Amino acid sequence: MTTERLLGLLSFVREIDKLKSVLRKTYLIDRSRSENTAEHSWHLALMAIVLSEHAAEEIDLPKVVKMLLVHDIVEIDAGDTFTYDEAAHADKEEREKAAADRIFNLLPADLAQDLRALWDEFESRATPESRFAVAMDRLQPMLHNLATEGGSWQEHRITRRRVEERNRVIEQGAPELWVYARAMLDEAEGKGWLEP
Amino acid sequence: MTTERLLGLLSFVREIDKLKSVLRKTYLIDRSRSENTAEHSWHLALMAIVLSEHAAEEIDLPKVVKMLLVHDIVEIDAGDTFTYDEAAHADKEEREKAAADRIFNLLPADLAQDLRALWDEFESRATPESRFAVAMDRLQPMLHNLATEGGSWQEHRITRRRVEERNRVIEQGAPELWVYARAMLDEAEGKGWLEP
Repeated sequence: MTTERLLGLLSFVREIDKLKSVLRKTYLIDRSRSENTAEHSWHLALMAIVLSEHAAEEIDLPKVVKMLLVHDIVEIDAGDTFTYDEAAHADKEEREKAAADRIFNLLPADLAQDLRALWDEFESRATPESRFAVAMDRLQPMLHNLATEGGSWQEHRITRRRVEERNRVIEQGAPELWVYARAMLDEAEGKGWLEP
Repeated sequence: MTTERLLGLLSFVREIDKLKSVLRKTYLIDRSRSENTAEHSWHLALMAIVLSEHAAEEIDLPKVVKMLLVHDIVEIDAGDTFTYDEAAHADKEEREKAAADRIFNLLPADLAQDLRALWDEFESRATPESRFAVAMDRLQPMLHNLATEGGSWQEHRITRRRVEERNRVIEQGAPELWVYARAMLDEAEGKGWLEP
């Protein structure tokens, strides 16, 4: 009754539970603890749904949602790479590719290819969907840092210039949200939450 | 530049961060801690994607995914109600309706109505999409309890009969998965993970 295929599907379902134990540098808005990557992915998927009217181009929203749900699964093996940690970014691609090869291939081939393609697309930023998804991924930690008096920016002494450099990509996917984000940065800078 | 509408959207985005602090009775598979409702919702959305071929009827999968992403948002105010806690179920509906009225209405009216309708549909179990979504919601804790030697069943001395009664609804949304789930229950009973 239980086929090989179903066992593969369920082994993936059990495996991805581990993403709930991968911690990010961002804090929850109530500052009680660090955010984990699974709940972060949920947050981004819902952000995409409610903010889709701000996409730069016409997007296939269900595809964006699916992409955001899987975009960080590789962190089960590769861990979270802090956006401002340049040293860790050196081998990020290699670590994440190896993780993608292992984790998506727990699934039957058709689904493995489908989800892997979405992950590749997210990383490529070559489509309207991936650019909007990346914008959500960059905007969310900014919202958290702004709601926590600088949060991980303060902790890691990040300058406004670096925040702008790393997150300017928001402009490509959601230009109006980048305007809003920059106004928030003005406020954060004024309050001393970013290094000069 | 920042409109009233955008402020509403972002207030909802910030508000839902609280769902990450709502704890469920289920444990993570590594038993390190209780699962929270935000990461649970992410898990269900991905389960729906990889298990959709087991839906009882033809489903609009993007709708199921969106439904699962919002289906527990009311727990920000109403808390998680343990599926085997019959006393807490007495006023669950009332508590959750009040929560839905508050939380979805942080959004502009069009989006509030859209997401609220999905929540109502999930609760109704009146459509193929809601029946499949409910099946995911019931199957996932079973998978976790089976992967943790009985987990919250053991802790709360739940009998096999109650597990079957509460979760039989899986059969309506995903009959093949219910067959699998019952086989897992046989195994759990054999191992003494369920009360006789």
